[in-house]
Amino acid sequence: MTRTKSDLIADRKRLLGPNVATFYDDPVHIVKGEGVWLWDADGRKYLDCYNNVPVVGHCNARVVDAIARQSATLNTHTRYLHDGILDYAEALTDTLDDSLNTALLTCTGSEANDVALRMAEAVTGKRGIIATDATYHGNTALVSQLSKSNVPTVGFGLDQYFRFVDAPDSYRNPDPDGTKFAAAVAEQIAAHEASGTGFAALVVCPYFLNEGFPNHPDGWLKPTAKVVRDAGGFLICDEVQSGFGRTGTHLWAHEKMGVVPDVLTLGKPMANGHPVGGLVTSAETMAAFRSGYRYFNTFGGNPVSSAAALAVLREIQERDLVENARVVGEHAQARLRDLMAKYDVIGDVRGSGLIFGAEMVTDRATKEPASAYTDRVINAMRQEGFILSKLGRHKNALKIRPPLVFSVDNADMLFDGLDTVLRDTPRE
Amino acid sequence: MTRTKSDLIADRKRLLGPNVATFYDDPVHIVKGEGVWLWDADGRKYLDCYNNVPVVGHCNARVVDAIARQSATLNTHTRYLHDGILDYAEALTDTLDDSLNTALLTCTGSEANDVALRMAEAVTGKRGIIATDATYHGNTALVSQLSKSNVPTVGFGLDQYFRFVDAPDSYRNPDPDGTKFAAAVAEQIAAHEASGTGFAALVVCPYFLNEGFPNHPDGWLKPTAKVVRDAGGFLICDEVQSGFGRTGTHLWAHEKMGVVPDVLTLGKPMANGHPVGGLVTSAETMAAFRSGYRYFNTFGGNPVSSAAALAVLREIQERDLVENARVVGEHAQARLRDLMAKYDVIGDVRGSGLIFGAEMVTDRATKEPASAYTDRVINAMRQEGFILSKLGRHKNALKIRPPLVFSVDNADMLFDGLDTVLRDTPRE
Repeated sequence: MTRTKSDLIADRKRLLGPNVATFYDDPVHIVKGEGVWLWDADGRKYLDCYNNVPVVGHCNARVVDAIARQSATLNTHTRYLHDGILDYAEALTDTLDDSLNTALLTCTGSEANDVALRMAEAVTGKRGIIATDATYHGNTALVSQLSKSNVPTVGFGLDQYFRFVDAPDSYRNPDPDGTKFAAAVAEQIAAHEASGTGFAALVVCPYFLNEGFPNHPDGWLKPTAKVVRDAGGFLICDEVQSGFGRTGTHLWAHEKMGVVPDVLTLGKPMANGHPVGGLVTSAETMAAFRSGYRYFNTFGGNPVSSAAALAVLREIQERDLVENARVVGEHAQARLRDLMAKYDVIGDVRGSGLIFGAEMVTDRATKEPASAYTDRVINAMRQEGFILSKLGRHKNALKIRPPLVFSVDNADMLFDGLDTVLRDTPRE
Repeated sequence: MTRTKSDLIADRKRLLGPNVATFYDDPVHIVKGEGVWLWDADGRKYLDCYNNVPVVGHCNARVVDAIARQSATLNTHTRYLHDGILDYAEALTDTLDDSLNTALLTCTGSEANDVALRMAEAVTGKRGIIATDATYHGNTALVSQLSKSNVPTVGFGLDQYFRFVDAPDSYRNPDPDGTKFAAAVAEQIAAHEASGTGFAALVVCPYFLNEGFPNHPDGWLKPTAKVVRDAGGFLICDEVQSGFGRTGTHLWAHEKMGVVPDVLTLGKPMANGHPVGGLVTSAETMAAFRSGYRYFNTFGGNPVSSAAALAVLREIQERDLVENARVVGEHAQARLRDLMAKYDVIGDVRGSGLIFGAEMVTDRATKEPASAYTDRVINAMRQEGFILSKLGRHKNALKIRPPLVFSVDNADMLFDGLDTVLRDTPRE
C-alpha cells in the first residue's frame, strides 16, 4: 500500500517498536533508485552522496539481471554442488594475498565478524578482543560488544572480553607514523594478558571509516600489525566499508595500510544490497575453525547471492571503478579545500577515493566541534536534494561516501549545493 | 564456469576448506529448479521431497517477479521510509495472536534467534537457556551453543549458560500429554537457578522437526509453557522449520501445540530462499530490547527482501497451501503405512502435513535403529531421482519435507519409488 509520510512514521513505531532510527529531522520516503540518484514519493530527485551499499550504483543493470536470471533458474543451499559459490570464491581470493585463499560466505557482515572472532579464539586459544572506541562491527550478541557507543544493554556477559583504544584522529591528535596507535594497542594487549583473558585479536577497519577516516600515509598500520603479531594475536580487518575499491588507490584498504590480515571480513557492498557477507582467511585458520564444527549457513553462498556478488566484483573490475574513485575523489577534495578557503567553519578536509569529508569546527584554533551546525547542514543539504551524513566521535564530520559510479559532474553538483548551504545556514 | 563433478568437489575443498558437507555419497550437481522439481547438470530430473526453503516451489513465478521488479526499482536500508517493510510486518503480525504485534527483520534465522535470546535476558535479567539435546537453532557464537550435537569448539565461554533436556520421542519414550517433557524442563530450570545463572528461556521448535517430529496431540506444549511461565522465563518458539503452514493444520505450529510464544523466530522459507529471517514479539519485549540499544540490520527488511517475503506469505494464503499440506500429508502417511505393512524395517510412521517420515529399525520389538540401512535407502532414492534425507537422534528417520506445492501425484511417485528401493536395498 502507499502510506502518507505521517502514517509511515506512525506504522514504523507501531509495527517495528521504538528506537528504529531514520535519517534526518524530516525523514525521506525513497521509492526509486538508479545509479547515483534516488527519488522520493513526491517525485523529488536526490543525489546520493552517502550510500556505499549500492557500490556499483542503485539498481545496477548487470547486478539486477544476475539476480533476476539466477532467481528464475535455481536458488538453493550449498549442500548440493554448484559452480556459483566456487566461481565467486575464486574471483574474490584472486584479488587477495596468497595467504588469503579460503572463503566462508554468510548473509551479513555481522555474521562474518562473529565467525572471525571465533576463528581468532580457535587459533590463539584466547578470548581478549581489542577495537577502537568509535567503531561498529555488527549486531550479533558477540560482535555488538565491539561498538562502545551502542552496546546492547544485555549480552550474556560477553563485555568482559572486549577492551578499547582511542580511535586515531589525524586532526586533533596526529600520529603520522602509527606508532602511538600501536603503543595504545600494546597497552590493551598487556591489560588483556594481565587480566588472565589473554589476547586473541585486534579488529579494525583499516581506513577507520566510522572513526572519521583520519588521514594517514600508506603503510600506517604496519607498527600496529607488528605489535599484534608479536603478541601472538590475530589482525582482523573489517573491510565492510573500506573494501571493494572505496579508497580509490587499492581494491582493499589493508593493502593501502601495508598489512595482510589474518581474517578479512566483508559485507554491505558485496552484492550491491542483496544480503551477502563473508570472510577470507588462510586454509590453516579455516581448518582450525571448521575442524570438529560443521558451520553451515542456509542462505550463505547460494546461487543467487553468488551470482549477485560476482556481478558486483566484475563490474568494479571491468569498469575500473577503483580508478574512478581515485579521480573523482581527488577532484572532490580539491573542491572541498576551495570551500575551506571560503568558510572557516571547515577545519579539516580529508579522505581517500570516494570516502571523504570535512570536519566542522566553531574555531580553527581550538578545533571545537561544530556538531549542531553539522546537523543543520546535513538537514539543509537533504532539503536541497543531496543525501549525505555525518560521523566521527563528535558527529561533526560530513561523511561523503557515494556509489563508486559517482562522477566529477556529480561532485561539482554536490559542492555547488554545499557552497549554497554553507552560505545560507546560520551558525547559531 | 562449468566444472566436472570431481572438479567441483576438489574446488570446494580448496576454496571453502574442510568439513563443508554435501548431501549423499555421490553429491548431486543441481543446476535448475521449478516447483517440486530439480535438474542436475546431466539433465537428470529429481523430485524434491526434502527442501523446505523453497516453500512455494522452486523459482516460484510470483516470488521471482517480486524480487526482479523490486531489485530494478529500489533496494536500500530501512533508515529511509518505505512501505515494503511495514506491509510485510502488518501482513505477518495479522496472522498471529494479538500479543505478537511487533517485528524485527534480519537476514537469517540465526540472527533472529541471537536477538531472541538477548530479549529473554533483557526482560528476565537472567541468562540460563534450555533446549533439547537433538536440535539446531543457528550458527552465531551465541545460538550455536543451542546445538548439542554440533557446538563450535570455541565460543567465548557461552556454553556455561546452556542446559539440555532429552528430545521428546513418541516412538521410544511416549509422553502423550507432555507432562514428562515439562518435568524435564522444570528439572533444568531448577538446575539453572541452583547454579546461580537463573532461568531466561526455553527455545524449542514446537513441532520438534530436527528431533524427528514426534507424534503429539494438539496442545502438547501446554504443560511445558506453564512450567516456563511459572518460573518467570520466556518461551521462544523457533518456527524456522515448522512455520508457514508446514504442519498442514495451522499456519504456525505453536498454535497446534496450544501455546503463544513470547518470541516467535522465523527464517528459511520466509522468502523462498532469498535471505530473510526475523522475529515477532510483544511491544513490551521489543521495547525492553531496543531501549538504549539501536539494533540495526543493514539488509534486514530492505524493499527487495520485504517484497519477496510478502509474495511468499500471499502465495501461501491465496493458494491455501496449508490445506494442500494437510490433504497431501494425509495421503502420504496412508501410503507410508501401506509400506509399513509390507516392510518390517519400517518401525513407525509419523508427521503432520508436509513434514512426515518413517523410522527404520532392525527389529520392531527392540526398536534398534537401522541407521546404516536408512543411509543406504537415502542414497538409493537419490539414484532413483528422489531427493530426501534422514534425521533424528539415531539418523534413522526418513525426513520428507517437500515444498508446500507438493501434490498427491508427487506423493504417489515418491512412494512407488520408495517401494522399489525398499524391495531392492539389501538389509545387510
